[in-house]
Amino acid sequence: MTVADLLPSWNEGPAKAAIVDFVQRATDKASPDFVREEDRFATFDQDGTLWVEHPMYTQLVFALDRVVALAPQHPEWKNTEPFKSVLAGDKAALSKFTMKDLEAIVMTTHAGVTTEAFAEIVADWIAKARDPRWGRPYTELTYQPMLEVMNYLRASGFRVYLVTGGGQAFVRAFAQKVYGVPPEHVIGSAAKTEYVSDSEGRGVLMKQPDILLFNDVAAKPEDIYLFLGRRPHAAFGNSTGDQAMLEYTSGNRGARLMMLVFHDDAAREYLYGPATGLPDTPFGTFTQALYDDAKAKGWIVISMKNDWKRLFAFEASTSGRTS
Amino acid sequence: MTVADLLPSWNEGPAKAAIVDFVQRATDKASPDFVREEDRFATFDQDGTLWVEHPMYTQLVFALDRVVALAPQHPEWKNTEPFKSVLAGDKAALSKFTMKDLEAIVMTTHAGVTTEAFAEIVADWIAKARDPRWGRPYTELTYQPMLEVMNYLRASGFRVYLVTGGGQAFVRAFAQKVYGVPPEHVIGSAAKTEYVSDSEGRGVLMKQPDILLFNDVAAKPEDIYLFLGRRPHAAFGNSTGDQAMLEYTSGNRGARLMMLVFHDDAAREYLYGPATGLPDTPFGTFTQALYDDAKAKGWIVISMKNDWKRLFAFEASTSGRTS
Repeated sequence: MTVADLLPSWNEGPAKAAIVDFVQRATDKASPDFVREEDRFATFDQDGTLWVEHPMYTQLVFALDRVVALAPQHPEWKNTEPFKSVLAGDKAALSKFTMKDLEAIVMTTHAGVTTEAFAEIVADWIAKARDPRWGRPYTELTYQPMLEVMNYLRASGFRVYLVTGGGQAFVRAFAQKVYGVPPEHVIGSAAKTEYVSDSEGRGVLMKQPDILLFNDVAAKPEDIYLFLGRRPHAAFGNSTGDQAMLEYTSGNRGARLMMLVFHDDAAREYLYGPATGLPDTPFGTFTQALYDDAKAKGWIVISMKNDWKRLFAFEASTSGRTS
Repeated sequence: MTVADLLPSWNEGPAKAAIVDFVQRATDKASPDFVREEDRFATFDQDGTLWVEHPMYTQLVFALDRVVALAPQHPEWKNTEPFKSVLAGDKAALSKFTMKDLEAIVMTTHAGVTTEAFAEIVADWIAKARDPRWGRPYTELTYQPMLEVMNYLRASGFRVYLVTGGGQAFVRAFAQKVYGVPPEHVIGSAAKTEYVSDSEGRGVLMKQPDILLFNDVAAKPEDIYLFLGRRPHAAFGNSTGDQAMLEYTSGNRGARLMMLVFHDDAAREYLYGPATGLPDTPFGTFTQALYDDAKAKGWIVISMKNDWKRLFAFEASTSGRTS
């Protein structure tokens, strides 16, 4: 199989060329940048890097739906913010939620169940929920070109990890099916769990409303080290939340690849980030400073508009640029 | 290759039979206990399960040696306990150290360096240090029968993880060479790290004197879930520190194997644990209650004396029992 077969949704250009060049250097024993197979790790941010993050993180949609589902067990929520506004469907109030409000919603809706029950709840939800713009499951709003990169890297001996600010337990519930990434290759924000023996002496893990890992910004390299014990050779992100992960990767020896997805395609997705003058996501942001830093360091900025023939598997190739 | 080839240091008996039976059930598609290859995980405690833990954990020997090595940079230690007693070689004082003393020694000697420098320090130390009884590197005091089980499980499609109360960074420095276990398959007690950009914009992780994970007792299943997102199918330990891990494993579906190493061989190693009336290690203990619980639940207790032909690779087979 040729490389072109593995990256069919990419236009020819500097981004595709950088990926192919990286893999060739990493896997060619004669290259000074050769990477032993046991050291081939690639890490991918999820929201905005592998799937659509606008207008709201999918996990937050899940959390809001869970508030509604759990409301009958919490009559006090009718009179308690931020739950009251969620139950009232008050979009103006929602848009003004503070980080503390969001944390209260996520912690409450992600705790008080066993880890195994939670995985089933997420799997059920994600099979049914639909994005309002496309009317499709959120899991179909994954970027086909990035799925191709993951496959290409795996075919080249890399282990592909997700390194997400999103919840580890949430993402694990669908990562194998959607990305081909098994649960043990998902590093994410994680709640504490508490081991409790059951009456038959078997034991379950109860999800707690407390954070163990908040996997964003500097915590991304810290948690990569916790899980892998080493630096990756390739890292993919789309915001300042990923900057430290890319920098940590750049400090490795041998072949390295650092890439940032730039959301510059208003027609096919959303337009935000550097040089757009438009508001960014409420969390990580692709600032002009990050863009300038990336250019100075030789990191690759992926233009969704120019580099991708299509964004989603369900689309025909619609890029204005011909390859 | 036959099973006998893969477990040559095991005598015939219930322990070996249980291992072989487990692997056959887990890997036979026609078995009701069949386990898909992607779910085949086995977890091993280290101290007392894979290598000698008496009279002192190897990592504690390392920490005491580091106190001596770092003393010139800490003149105040001459007058500060617990360092003063360590530097004076006061064995009576050492034997009375509290958990707080030991924590101070471990935290101080394991922090203030980059993760990469620490890995080199450990690798250098473990190559040179010798156990006083056998006069051999600590890494040769690994139990040959357990190394064979790890190989046998890997040959049967299992991923083998270490799940140790010992330091993750310490164990990772030699786990690949000694056990064939790569860094990303080592779950251990872990210090916090702090990501710091260096002057060239590359970034390093500094080890902090604070605990992130103390991987013992109930934290073992909690951390297994954090890393793997699921229950193992086989778990090996030797103390109450491993009891929750074995119980968590027993709650899986399909083939399961729970084993405890019983140190009942005074001649070839040390005698301690249930029914011996002898003192145990200062941390996890193989209590009579654990022994009774294991027997009641059908967990397998490995008698080092009866089940193992030899303990170490450098030994001839010396078991009193013929197989």
